[in-house]
Amino acid sequence: MCPHALIPYKIVNPKTRLSCILSQEEREVFARVMLEDVIHAVKDANCSPVIVGTDLFDSEDIQVTVRDADLNQTLNSILPQSVGEIFIIMADLPLADAQSIRRVIGTSSDIAIVPGRGGGTNVIFIKEPQRFHVDYYGPSFLKHVKIAEDAGLSCEVIDSFRLHTDIDEKEDLVELLVHGRGKSRAYLEELGFVVTVEKGRVGVERKEKTV
Amino acid sequence: MCPHALIPYKIVNPKTRLSCILSQEEREVFARVMLEDVIHAVKDANCSPVIVGTDLFDSEDIQVTVRDADLNQTLNSILPQSVGEIFIIMADLPLADAQSIRRVIGTSSDIAIVPGRGGGTNVIFIKEPQRFHVDYYGPSFLKHVKIAEDAGLSCEVIDSFRLHTDIDEKEDLVELLVHGRGKSRAYLEELGFVVTVEKGRVGVERKEKTV
Repeated sequence: MCPHALIPYKIVNPKTRLSCILSQEEREVFARVMLEDVIHAVKDANCSPVIVGTDLFDSEDIQVTVRDADLNQTLNSILPQSVGEIFIIMADLPLADAQSIRRVIGTSSDIAIVPGRGGGTNVIFIKEPQRFHVDYYGPSFLKHVKIAEDAGLSCEVIDSFRLHTDIDEKEDLVELLVHGRGKSRAYLEELGFVVTVEKGRVGVERKEKTV
Repeated sequence: MCPHALIPYKIVNPKTRLSCILSQEEREVFARVMLEDVIHAVKDANCSPVIVGTDLFDSEDIQVTVRDADLNQTLNSILPQSVGEIFIIMADLPLADAQSIRRVIGTSSDIAIVPGRGGGTNVIFIKEPQRFHVDYYGPSFLKHVKIAEDAGLSCEVIDSFRLHTDIDEKEDLVELLVHGRGKSRAYLEELGFVVTVEKGRVGVERKEKTV
């Protein structure tokens, strides 16, 4: 079994909620190394990554380029044409590893969903892509559960914090510095980010690098 | 196998980071119903809850009362006297369920740890409690991994978002309203809390209750 993993990816000006601590150029590099961590995990689980975006970029992996930047329209145009099992995994999940992905694709249900923080959807595995469509944005987890139900598809929710942890805001960087093992953690450290503890609360701080 | 589950619990003025949206009385009720959800999950996994606190309260479950409110001192005085396997689970994990707890206590390692958000530790399962001590507060996850390592104990990290999600702040309530199934979710709904979506971001709001 070797399902394709669709990975939506935005090259230009990604992760704007990190603007307070990362420049646009740094955010673009950071998004790219997070993508590489996700690709690494996907391959490690013996799956084939397919990067879905509006612009081509330098990579040896398969890329699908689409005109439309709307995530739902893009994916919903791909799903009906897909042959065999497929999963969609977000590019901002640098804690993803082969073990957590295997739990998803090993489901005995028709669909497996990993919720993201804040009611979102981080991973969806679909055995018959023709029978499902996606509806991201907002509390998409509940929407996807309902879409599966309406289509008569059984659905398993996979309980994984590694796939639940999307990196959007400054406080999320704590998770990456504590639990990350890949390139994106190394990149944060290279930029001078460290875990801090203030009044018992854990956070991150960017230290000035001495040249 | 029926390990005891130690559940540290603070009756008076708990969850102060929720003061912005809950009165002290409401926070006390909320902490109590979260505890009840955790106890339910623990029993559902065939384990025996033991509530650890400084004050006795009305409950049919076993309670250990201690003079000292310091979590580390309290637990480190209990661990050496414990016979057989034990686990420590926080009382603010209302998404806990039997399945996630079974993954913890089913480890083949000497120790299993579930990290909490922000570098904390939400659950520790210890096969030989005499060989371990706890060090909560701050980035305790990394401290506990090191304590295990120093004691020559093998350690498995359990990848569960249900046990990873501790409820401390307003934004955490989204998780409970989306994924909760027990009394604490019902209590939030009773108070008028609903999931909201504003500019694509999911949050919670407390609606005025019409009498």
